[in-house]
Amino acid sequence: MVACLAVAALLLGPSPVHAQDAGNPIARRYRATADRIIAAALADTVAYSRLATMTDMYGSRLSGSPGLERAINWVLARMRDDRLDNVRGEPVMVPHWVRGQESATLVSPRPWKLHMLGLGGSVGTPPEGITAPVLVVKSFDDLSAHAGEAKGKIVLFDSPFPTDVPPMEGYGINVQYRGGAASAAAKVGAVAALIRSVATHSQQSPHTGSLRYQGNVPEIPSAALSVEDAEMLHRMQDRGEPVVVTLKMQAHMLPDVPSRNVVAELRGSERPDEVVVLGGHIDSWDVGEGAMDDGGGSFAAWEAVRLIKELGLRPRRTLRVVMWVNEENGLRGGRAYRDLHDAELPKTVAAMESDNGVFTPSGFRFQGSADGLAMAKQIGALLDKIGAGEVTLGDGEADVGPIIGEGVPGFALNVDDSTYFWYHHSDADMMTVIDLDQFRHCIATMAVMAYVLADNPTALPR
Amino acid sequence: MVACLAVAALLLGPSPVHAQDAGNPIARRYRATADRIIAAALADTVAYSRLATMTDMYGSRLSGSPGLERAINWVLARMRDDRLDNVRGEPVMVPHWVRGQESATLVSPRPWKLHMLGLGGSVGTPPEGITAPVLVVKSFDDLSAHAGEAKGKIVLFDSPFPTDVPPMEGYGINVQYRGGAASAAAKVGAVAALIRSVATHSQQSPHTGSLRYQGNVPEIPSAALSVEDAEMLHRMQDRGEPVVVTLKMQAHMLPDVPSRNVVAELRGSERPDEVVVLGGHIDSWDVGEGAMDDGGGSFAAWEAVRLIKELGLRPRRTLRVVMWVNEENGLRGGRAYRDLHDAELPKTVAAMESDNGVFTPSGFRFQGSADGLAMAKQIGALLDKIGAGEVTLGDGEADVGPIIGEGVPGFALNVDDSTYFWYHHSDADMMTVIDLDQFRHCIATMAVMAYVLADNPTALPR
Repeated sequence: MVACLAVAALLLGPSPVHAQDAGNPIARRYRATADRIIAAALADTVAYSRLATMTDMYGSRLSGSPGLERAINWVLARMRDDRLDNVRGEPVMVPHWVRGQESATLVSPRPWKLHMLGLGGSVGTPPEGITAPVLVVKSFDDLSAHAGEAKGKIVLFDSPFPTDVPPMEGYGINVQYRGGAASAAAKVGAVAALIRSVATHSQQSPHTGSLRYQGNVPEIPSAALSVEDAEMLHRMQDRGEPVVVTLKMQAHMLPDVPSRNVVAELRGSERPDEVVVLGGHIDSWDVGEGAMDDGGGSFAAWEAVRLIKELGLRPRRTLRVVMWVNEENGLRGGRAYRDLHDAELPKTVAAMESDNGVFTPSGFRFQGSADGLAMAKQIGALLDKIGAGEVTLGDGEADVGPIIGEGVPGFALNVDDSTYFWYHHSDADMMTVIDLDQFRHCIATMAVMAYVLADNPTALPR
Repeated sequence: MVACLAVAALLLGPSPVHAQDAGNPIARRYRATADRIIAAALADTVAYSRLATMTDMYGSRLSGSPGLERAINWVLARMRDDRLDNVRGEPVMVPHWVRGQESATLVSPRPWKLHMLGLGGSVGTPPEGITAPVLVVKSFDDLSAHAGEAKGKIVLFDSPFPTDVPPMEGYGINVQYRGGAASAAAKVGAVAALIRSVATHSQQSPHTGSLRYQGNVPEIPSAALSVEDAEMLHRMQDRGEPVVVTLKMQAHMLPDVPSRNVVAELRGSERPDEVVVLGGHIDSWDVGEGAMDDGGGSFAAWEAVRLIKELGLRPRRTLRVVMWVNEENGLRGGRAYRDLHDAELPKTVAAMESDNGVFTPSGFRFQGSADGLAMAKQIGALLDKIGAGEVTLGDGEADVGPIIGEGVPGFALNVDDSTYFWYHHSDADMMTVIDLDQFRHCIATMAVMAYVLADNPTALPR
């Protein structure tokens, strides 16, 4: 529907002054240019093709992995092919966690190979694994109520993803188990911790993600089970059947290794030292091929800038694509960017990120002042024709968090995230998730907003 | 919504004569009884609990597996607990195919453990596996066009499930690749055949199912890849990358083994030799726990009869629950039933099966005469209040096919099958798929139709 509206609008063609732009001088000024950018983005094939090539060729891109470094090299080479300015990898030291072989096997009441993924940052088990009875609990409170039964056991938190709130809000609630299960279980004497995958739909596909060990508590191995398997173990316990699992994990942490934030620019024609940053993160979890999280977001930003250049446009300020590294398990890229570009942040006009998948976009969450919001809404009007013009107050994404913290206004691409947690951090994060038309809409949305932010004579108010 | 309507209708309570029953003597006669059955079914917890217990306890139930025989023993014991009549296992010799260990590994252009499931009935590979270049084709026609390139290769059929037709129709088209890929590929000299899983949604979950080898063609190993992986290999080929896969399968066929159709009755009060058969199939594929296909269907039929008995109802004719064996890879149960009950078929009033999952039911497909359809529609009116009263002409299910072929009118439970091929024949066919409320509606629907067919003084016209 969005696509149909967009096509219909384009067929009508641009007219010098649009009635809907009355009272919106920014929209009036940029309508024709925005329409050109949108038309180019909605016909784009380069970004999809490049994303497929990179993800298929190098696979997942966990910090510390050879695949990540090869993918970064490939992206930098293509950015040079594009003749973007100042193409470079900016050094970042990143953590190096390695999953190794792993398995979880139901021993009792019947043999069954559980569908599992160790959680990022987890310690491993002894080589022979850990075999122990399972205590299933519904929540941290439920664990407290059964604290006396946890000693020597594997605690499984079967806490469903809340579905009575928007997905991102439900994630914020449910992810506490991924982060905190291990230490909560260790505190009451458990030998390992399992969680129900943090997911809104499952087809026996477990979902990984980072855990956080608390200080002064033993570090015990922790893994996610598929929703189906977690529910099955829960039912078994409810029926009084003795549930025993063998968990084997080779997971371990190695010393930090060097990696890079990927950076490329379209230098501004008049005020090149003023910068609009836009990007996503280049790293992914070590499963699937990281097409959605966040190959799509980072490539949408890249393509936005490439298309602007290809259209012969060069905004007054500099457009800078950044593909941050290590969003998934450290956020070292976002912090390194802040530290390296510290002196420049007062002149960084805006920081935009896409990290909720490249699904149908509706606009942006804006983190900044009321005056900034007002201007962002004016620019957003240029995107109403493709249904992507809504700008609301809200938090930015993770990688731009450190520079938003220094006063840079933030833009987070808002998309239809209803299926995001079907695939998130799972082996199903593959190119199949990427819909070409939705991806194009994301490129159009980021390109128009970034271009006008970079070109408008008056800078976005802080 | 269906549930709300049903509850609202029940709260209104039965009145002796309903306006909507004018001109429908069957509905008038059975309205009060049907309402009692519906009320009991919509509050039922026994079937769900039993289905969870059996599937969790014994897992998948492929013909020839110990799990199947244990599950059959357990069901027969519970049917005796229910004090149903003539509880028995009727002997059936079934094929005994064993999957063994299996894997498919992408060797080039990059290492990747493909998500695969060998197809039922496939032969295995040598122990060292088969390593060969992959030729990806879109269809049988596409293979013909590239027949000269297939020799010595592994042919992958990447043929998407048609989505412009209803799921069952799309399945009928797409499943030709599962059945015929191996022999089509062998004819042009291929060493193995892969297919894109026959599925409408994937989260890296491959789907198995039977293949059929043609005579006079070499039998080559055949397996399904996940949709995601099949698409990835296709993209790699399109980019000109050399795709090489190592396929290892221990699959093999053993001699037939004895198994059983599960049978139990509620003997008729007046005409016990006239029979209404209702059921599903007890076997499943050797993945997941066979909760949807077809634990749910067979248990819905069982619970329908158990509830009728528990309500103190005993229809004039006999109600017979049958859980056929070997629907998935042989249909031996359905044929054995026909042969064993041959003399009785003229007095078998109807044969009803549920085998499309126990999702929200809409009514039945009826296979029989116009007069039979007219009566079935009259009975269906009793189910309109729960949205399940629609009776249309259409084919019956597989297990009742052999007796429908002998003239027995057939009823197939129609359900919302929009997600059926998300889970079908995959490891995701778990209890998580079963929605308690939808399951209850299926039980109600089968129970009302079966009860009235068994009790109505006039038999269903053939």
